[in-house]
Amino acid sequence: MTYCLGIITKYGLLMASDSRTNAGVDHVSTYLKLFDFSCPGERVVLLSCSGNLSITQSVINELRRDIQAGEVENLHSLHSLYEIARYIGAITRRVQERDRPWLEKDGIDCACNFLLGGQIHGQEPELMMIYSQGNFICATPETPFLQIGETKYGKPILDRTLTFDTSLDVAAKCALLSIDSTMKSNISVGPPIRIVLYERNSLKISHQLEFCIGDPYLMEVRRLWEECLKQGFANIPDIDWQQQ
Amino acid sequence: MTYCLGIITKYGLLMASDSRTNAGVDHVSTYLKLFDFSCPGERVVLLSCSGNLSITQSVINELRRDIQAGEVENLHSLHSLYEIARYIGAITRRVQERDRPWLEKDGIDCACNFLLGGQIHGQEPELMMIYSQGNFICATPETPFLQIGETKYGKPILDRTLTFDTSLDVAAKCALLSIDSTMKSNISVGPPIRIVLYERNSLKISHQLEFCIGDPYLMEVRRLWEECLKQGFANIPDIDWQQQ
Repeated sequence: MTYCLGIITKYGLLMASDSRTNAGVDHVSTYLKLFDFSCPGERVVLLSCSGNLSITQSVINELRRDIQAGEVENLHSLHSLYEIARYIGAITRRVQERDRPWLEKDGIDCACNFLLGGQIHGQEPELMMIYSQGNFICATPETPFLQIGETKYGKPILDRTLTFDTSLDVAAKCALLSIDSTMKSNISVGPPIRIVLYERNSLKISHQLEFCIGDPYLMEVRRLWEECLKQGFANIPDIDWQQQ
Repeated sequence: MTYCLGIITKYGLLMASDSRTNAGVDHVSTYLKLFDFSCPGERVVLLSCSGNLSITQSVINELRRDIQAGEVENLHSLHSLYEIARYIGAITRRVQERDRPWLEKDGIDCACNFLLGGQIHGQEPELMMIYSQGNFICATPETPFLQIGETKYGKPILDRTLTFDTSLDVAAKCALLSIDSTMKSNISVGPPIRIVLYERNSLKISHQLEFCIGDPYLMEVRRLWEECLKQGFANIPDIDWQQQ
């Protein structure tokens, strides 16, 4: 599995992902799952992916090839993130159509999902999830985050912490904790964790970091968080069993 | 969906469940999912269930009928929890065999899972998970909890808090928080929450409670927990983006 998330707030975008891929427990590898297709000053285009690795790598390759070949439709030429999402959806459909019959013969799941985040000069930042079927949805101020892959473990912390008014620094910590919680509960999600922060209207990546195993900040976050949970837990009064 | 969990520690057992059942979002109902088949002084037998409601209700009915009919094999006559788990597994297989071909014609999932917890006089307490296929596993001191249904949202808190040495009062709070977190992130899990506590070697239910919407204790737990998360979150230093 994989776990990627995107957060959009009025201050900009935050994208984060783990780096583990597995085909069964005896084939675990580390792959980059967060890709930057930006043209600084004109557009920021960030893409993360989950699901069948051969499918997502094919899609990423086709996206790169179209840019290099100067195709009419490519990530640098299309005029809006809506058009870019449709274009990525179309490529996904094409790759699926090509490989699916062969994968299905052996019962291999060829599903995949993408998170697309970015901004094009003169337009608002957007965050979208593109499904395996090629269709897509946008994050909104009411639901300012989207997740793909192994999403459930890390959702409670997002539900309790994020709003559209959250600062990007807080969103970054929240994303890190969400991924770290998932890594603790599910071995199919693993380090390094990659985080990219984009400030609205800057039209270039503001910050990016990779947190490897043993990273001092990540270990400190984990220690503080566990301490907080234990302390908070201790502060909750015991159940009064006689109350009813 | 549903969310049920069982915790076994050296002090005894804790079983908890939500009460929501749904067949699509337009058919949501409240059903009891935690059943007490104990004979105080001789044995404690607690059973919770998730999955297809018609299948689990049929199984529960057959279990009750066998007791009433005084069948040779029933929940009150069998000599160990191991035998009881095999017996429940056999009934599950029989019900599945009867209904499955008809459900599958309409693409209806007939999977179900059970958690069985209890103690029989002269033996140790045990906690088991019985699968849809009728086989089963036991919780062990290394992994002192088992979950069925919508298990992922509420797992991180269990992973971080529970050991075999945890007191039952702490385990009860932990179970409540695990279910409450799940309810916040997934509408297919809902109140009331039922919690049953069993102290080792007492051979009778020690405590049980049901927490409905608006229960003052549950609201206080939720408030304290959210405050703790917010405070703990605020205490985590911001990411230093210049570190690398």
